[in-house]
Amino acid sequence: MGITLDQAETAIKAAKVKALEINTLMNIAVVDAGANLVAFVRMDGAWLGSADISQKKARTARYFDMPTGELGKLSQPGGPLFNIEHANGGLITFPGGLPIKNSAGEVIGAIGVSGSSVENDHTVAQAGVDAIS
Amino acid sequence: MGITLDQAETAIKAAKVKALEINTLMNIAVVDAGANLVAFVRMDGAWLGSADISQKKARTARYFDMPTGELGKLSQPGGPLFNIEHANGGLITFPGGLPIKNSAGEVIGAIGVSGSSVENDHTVAQAGVDAIS
Amino acid sequence: MGITLDQAETAIKAAKVKALEINTLMNIAVVDAGANLVAFVRMDGAWLGSADISQKKARTARYFDMPTGELGKLSQPGGPLFNIEHANGGLITFPGGLPIKNSAGEVIGAIGVSGSSVENDHTVAQAGVDAIS
Amino acid sequence: MGITLDQAETAIKAAKVKALEINTLMNIAVVDAGANLVAFVRMDGAWLGSADISQKKARTARYFDMPTGELGKLSQPGGPLFNIEHANGGLITFPGGLPIKNSAGEVIGAIGVSGSSVENDHTVAQAGVDAIS
Repeated sequence: MGITLDQAETAIKAAKVKALEINTLMNIAVVDAGANLVAFVRMDGAWLGSADISQKKARTARYFDMPTGELGKLSQPGGPLFNIEHANGGLITFPGGLPIKNSAGEVIGAIGVSGSSVENDHTVAQAGVDAIS
Repeated sequence: MGITLDQAETAIKAAKVKALEINTLMNIAVVDAGANLVAFVRMDGAWLGSADISQKKARTARYFDMPTGELGKLSQPGGPLFNIEHANGGLITFPGGLPIKNSAGEVIGAIGVSGSSVENDHTVAQAGVDAIS
Repeated sequence: MGITLDQAETAIKAAKVKALEINTLMNIAVVDAGANLVAFVRMDGAWLGSADISQKKARTARYFDMPTGELGKLSQPGGPLFNIEHANGGLITFPGGLPIKNSAGEVIGAIGVSGSSVENDHTVAQAGVDAIS
Repeated sequence: MGITLDQAETAIKAAKVKALEINTLMNIAVVDAGANLVAFVRMDGAWLGSADISQKKARTARYFDMPTGELGKLSQPGGPLFNIEHANGGLITFPGGLPIKNSAGEVIGAIGVSGSSVENDHTVAQAGVDAIS
């Protein structure tokens, strides 16, 4: 099923370090290759509503093997995938979700981060990805 | 309820051939006249998130007896059916879903395809429809 | 992600043959190691309500890596897992769902069958499993 | 909202140690005083279906400030809370969920464990509670 709990915890730890470094409080979720939750943390004081968003970002990134923000460019009014967010029990298509690949380039899971601006969410997610690449 | 499993499998087989021909990996769903699932396949390596989308496209096409993309033109901001996607547990209104009619012109079911660009999704869905017309 | 579409279609084909042999009409679903749908068919005239049940049986069998009927023995009133069916968006815990393993004994997916008595459902599911073992 | 992420991670770490000690693979969830998820881990190879169950156990334990197994005694056929599991989007009322209290005796959160027998689930949850008491 791809990513291990050890890898997921390594990614989350790095993401937390980055979150503190840029002075944010985040919810961080990691799913495996089957889009099933492997690990999750909500930093003290982080938005409650972001717990679900971070998990949906992680799942969305694995569902379509791309950064969530890429999907969001296509789901705007007039865009080819308008309102795709209604599928799969709710997708989140703004930045903060990233696929995680192994050294062979295969997707082994995904990380989703929510709790600040989408730029910050993306930055923290990237730190998680980088930690296990 | 219209379409038979034999017809559905014929449509899916033709859709798979077309998908490979245009170098894509698709999720393909067929529903009957009652909008209930008859057959479904996910090609190896196709997006996980497209399983639900292909089924929603098929259902949407039968719910309103029109190509999903036609509905999508009407559901845009300012349009007459803005955000119709909230109905029926989630509709998908971009291209890739097509009604299937019998020789008398009656709708007997619908096909939904998801896994690539909406143009490709539509092309593969059309191949499925053509195979049983 | 374990099972391939080829394997899933082989299992479904064998299950259909068995279903006809014992004079039943079935819904048959196969999920992969991540509990995501790979393939599904509803035989002409099979119960509409069994489409969802067959999928839930397949997912349940993979969620807990055991035949669904085994879980059902534990979820009865007074049993240790009473009302476990409320988890995961709805589990089905009577017979008809079976894990599918590879030659190394690893679970690569599951099959779920619904449309007749639970004994028949189980028999048809087993035929699907046997076809790819 | 009571429990901190540090405390939750301490509880989860102790629960994982206990899980390995008794030769089990667990899903472990911790919620805060608001019944919102704080931290979650799924050990490699643990049942996929137990991810949701562990979270529902934790929420159930906080919703009613009692061990989930106590609620289960009341929700049996003929009992005063028969089928309470239908509330709150699905409760789990067999053992494995425990409230977490501070030194003043106030409930600050709850832990839910799923992946083995309910006795083992309870044992691992208790180890989590003990680690932060």
